[in-house]
Amino acid sequence: MESRDKIAIAECPLFSGINQEEMEDLLKWISPGVETYDIGSLLRFQGDEYNSLLILLEGEVSAEIQDYSGRTVKIENLKAPDAIASGILFAEDNTLPVTLVAQKPIRLISLKREDILSLAQKNRTFLQNYFSDSGNKVAFLAEKIRLFKFNTLREKFAGYLLNLSGKQNSDRVKLPYSREKLAELFGVARPSLSRTCSELADEGLVDLHGKTVTILDKKGLKAIINPL
Amino acid sequence: MESRDKIAIAECPLFSGINQEEMEDLLKWISPGVETYDIGSLLRFQGDEYNSLLILLEGEVSAEIQDYSGRTVKIENLKAPDAIASGILFAEDNTLPVTLVAQKPIRLISLKREDILSLAQKNRTFLQNYFSDSGNKVAFLAEKIRLFKFNTLREKFAGYLLNLSGKQNSDRVKLPYSREKLAELFGVARPSLSRTCSELADEGLVDLHGKTVTILDKKGLKAIINPL
Repeated sequence: MESRDKIAIAECPLFSGINQEEMEDLLKWISPGVETYDIGSLLRFQGDEYNSLLILLEGEVSAEIQDYSGRTVKIENLKAPDAIASGILFAEDNTLPVTLVAQKPIRLISLKREDILSLAQKNRTFLQNYFSDSGNKVAFLAEKIRLFKFNTLREKFAGYLLNLSGKQNSDRVKLPYSREKLAELFGVARPSLSRTCSELADEGLVDLHGKTVTILDKKGLKAIINPL
Repeated sequence: MESRDKIAIAECPLFSGINQEEMEDLLKWISPGVETYDIGSLLRFQGDEYNSLLILLEGEVSAEIQDYSGRTVKIENLKAPDAIASGILFAEDNTLPVTLVAQKPIRLISLKREDILSLAQKNRTFLQNYFSDSGNKVAFLAEKIRLFKFNTLREKFAGYLLNLSGKQNSDRVKLPYSREKLAELFGVARPSLSRTCSELADEGLVDLHGKTVTILDKKGLKAIINPL
């Protein structure tokens, strides 16, 4: 494995908290295959069996699905150093739900399922990271489903903030996701989310600073989701 | 641990494929707490921190959420010997998304997060089972989200069958879920699903036998989701 790849893989959330020495030791036990792709390449297809975990070392891919009318819908963007579909790898139905398209030149490694099991048994931190990665996906998708009951983006965002405020027991809410990830959660493009953020701020309902949102008018937010 | 509990826990999917001898050895390393509840008891609340995995040994719980209007909505039923929220346990936001209500007298064990990590490091089968349990949840929720694009249950079911048929590369489709789980996937009550199944069969579009569905009229199914 080239040293630039070793540096890149150490940045992946799955290896977070593992020091260089442990890392060297772990990498001895596995034989990751490095793959490279040009922009526009299709890395894997929707419906492919997913038997090796892909970890992006460089670049960015989009995850797309094709619906029955043949229309292509972009689901999310995945960036280095993310692992791709860590949950699906071990699902009984381990077919990829998306097609992966290179948005930038890609360098990735692929780790066999058996190697993942070996790494997890050897290293407790890796094990915990893997559980977290998959668990975070469950939490994200479950939240996305809860938000489907709201019709508009305004309602989704208001409902989401009120829920977080309840959870964090504060009117000063810390957003757990980046703006990009939030847009994906709400199923909208980023500019739409920015517009809604500005609207709510202009109306004096919230104050936004990076990942911190201060709820200024809780009654007003509640009125968005329960207009009666 | 009582011997009836040892028998019950061995039935849990997380311990599938682990023989009695290995099981005895594994159970030595953990100190599971057994809890019992009467019908109607609230086991855990939506928003509670989830730090120990609950495994149902006896009984059935419903997972419910309370929305902003104060209305309670049932999300799913969980039955012994299922593990509850195996993914959420390790998510960064490990708050329970649901309230758990005993629908039958409950006997359960609770396993600390650290004990789960120890079991997974000691036993490769348990590790793989845990990854699968969490991965299956990801696959289920992702499928549920894909189905949201369809408006009616007829459309959902037709779209789902066509998708499975494509995946399994056959007009004879094997359903991966029980009827109850399918109803949950489509977000409907079981009787509604049964009605739709009967309708599609009466119209000569499909033939249903247990978990096997034979698609008799693919064009007809496609017309349901693309009526143009």
